[in-house]
Amino acid sequence: MTLELPAVDSIDDHALAARLQHLLDHKTKPLGALGRLEALGLRLGMILGSEAPAFSSPQMLVCAGDHGLAARGVSAYPSDVTWQMVENFLAGGAAVSVLARQHGLALTVVDCGVRHDFEPRDGLRILKVAPGTADALSGPAMSTTQCEAAIANGMALVRELPGNALLLGEMGIGNSSAAALLLARLTGQDIDACTGSGTGLDAAGLARKRALLREVLALHADAGTPLVALAAFGGFEIATLVGAVLQAAHQRRVIVVDGFIASAAVLVAHALRPHVVQRCVAAHVSAEPGHRLLLQTLGLVPLLSLDLRLGEGSGAALAWPLLESACRILREMASFESAGVSQREP
Amino acid sequence: MTLELPAVDSIDDHALAARLQHLLDHKTKPLGALGRLEALGLRLGMILGSEAPAFSSPQMLVCAGDHGLAARGVSAYPSDVTWQMVENFLAGGAAVSVLARQHGLALTVVDCGVRHDFEPRDGLRILKVAPGTADALSGPAMSTTQCEAAIANGMALVRELPGNALLLGEMGIGNSSAAALLLARLTGQDIDACTGSGTGLDAAGLARKRALLREVLALHADAGTPLVALAAFGGFEIATLVGAVLQAAHQRRVIVVDGFIASAAVLVAHALRPHVVQRCVAAHVSAEPGHRLLLQTLGLVPLLSLDLRLGEGSGAALAWPLLESACRILREMASFESAGVSQREP
Repeated sequence: MTLELPAVDSIDDHALAARLQHLLDHKTKPLGALGRLEALGLRLGMILGSEAPAFSSPQMLVCAGDHGLAARGVSAYPSDVTWQMVENFLAGGAAVSVLARQHGLALTVVDCGVRHDFEPRDGLRILKVAPGTADALSGPAMSTTQCEAAIANGMALVRELPGNALLLGEMGIGNSSAAALLLARLTGQDIDACTGSGTGLDAAGLARKRALLREVLALHADAGTPLVALAAFGGFEIATLVGAVLQAAHQRRVIVVDGFIASAAVLVAHALRPHVVQRCVAAHVSAEPGHRLLLQTLGLVPLLSLDLRLGEGSGAALAWPLLESACRILREMASFESAGVSQREP
Repeated sequence: MTLELPAVDSIDDHALAARLQHLLDHKTKPLGALGRLEALGLRLGMILGSEAPAFSSPQMLVCAGDHGLAARGVSAYPSDVTWQMVENFLAGGAAVSVLARQHGLALTVVDCGVRHDFEPRDGLRILKVAPGTADALSGPAMSTTQCEAAIANGMALVRELPGNALLLGEMGIGNSSAAALLLARLTGQDIDACTGSGTGLDAAGLARKRALLREVLALHADAGTPLVALAAFGGFEIATLVGAVLQAAHQRRVIVVDGFIASAAVLVAHALRPHVVQRCVAAHVSAEPGHRLLLQTLGLVPLLSLDLRLGEGSGAALAWPLLESACRILREMASFESAGVSQREP
């Protein structure tokens, strides 16, 4: 391992936590009446180190890559959809484009390893390690060097991006397979429990996917450490997100986790730097069954549960206004004292 | 009954429903991958009668009123908090003020029957039927005339407000008791299952509230029709919301239902005009246990589940961006054809 990973310290300013809780408890509402929005406000205040947390220049990062395993039929869609969707992100017609526009999120699309040559243009970063990963059923999806290059790309990318919040998105036909493999290997869960129908396999397709992923796991039985497992299963977009998450956590940005694949990147980052999760907010729990298991492993409680299973960062974008609201509650709501409202009867 | 209630027809344009579903199915995403956001888009398109639904001038209506029953200790807060919170809404320091500002919702606060004289000002409508309802344990909370006056106020109010979306909010110390009584009477559920701790009663307080509400129900055993029950239990803010809901439904506005009390107003309106619910979107399910029962009765599936129990319209405001997103998905997302993205393999 030649790559140096950034340090991620523990956020344990108990005095700030107490001040934030005091502020929340004295806002003009019954104690705890804003429910999980209050816990969210506390977390955002702790991450940003402020009693009046405010976001600046939130960044939606959509990392794309292709997967060698896709040729074996683990997805309902052909690999070409990866690059076609990158074009769609940039043209503004994809779900994440629409939602990022709605919420004023800067959208950066990253070619981390798509099997296609893109014309350079605004909004697209070409950080292609290779045109797609290798077939994980024939060997590791990425070499160690490739895996480290992708992680380094993610770190460099976030260093260059402004703002104090990072929303994670991804695109890659076949990448729910990589996420399932990482979840199974890093947590010891059975691969069947980690594997879902992704973009929409039927029952027979799901059975084939599960059998195939069991084979892949067996082939890489010795890929036990987080980075070796990441290299074994891929992909470039997940590795780039791992680097992005580590760098964002190092800089104490708020990390808004999207669906199953983005969460798998956080799982790897968490295995490398456990305090990463303190900076994370789980936007939603998806319809992909492994996602619930993954969030439970990370100890993250999702804000939304809308049966989404699209990825792209769409769930992170949908949840974004709730994070904004949690900050505004802290910043803008009156206290009982300042508003002249009677406290509850003793 | 001298008051004439508006007609609310059934929305059953099957051809439009089919066109909306076709549009959703051909957007650049796997079939159904936006989960419940797609069903929401379909519903909004049907209500607004458009394949490209768009909101104009969304209105947050916060109806306030006091309850005679509050003097018997059914709430953790004194009645004065009702008028103090009205002042707080208008000063911009309450949760709903903050959230309405965040989302560009026009906020109208209505004195439907608060036990306080307000100075007139912008944003406040004084439609006070009486300074608080009578004690429902001594007789009906409202006379028939008062109840009809409050409903007529709500209807007139919505007729005057612009826009095609109405978000329901309320304030009234003691009004979770009125909502519980209405739920129990109109659905036949046991009062204990309908009654929660409201603004935060402890176990002993909750037991007292349940016993008291059982007495009130028994006293008004013959108040069986929706309007007689509404008059018996109150309150002015709920009756005003009933009128607002009926008028909004008549005009085919989208009605965004907030928590337990706003939902109780929809329950009464639904009992009077069943097709009202076709126009409703349930913003959230609150921590108040009766709310889940009430939404199930109405057949509404809530968007958020964040353990909120504040009322004011705060949950409706928090869910609002999801409604906006559902419309934008329909209006702005590309189709597979228009974006040149490959369909799934056959």
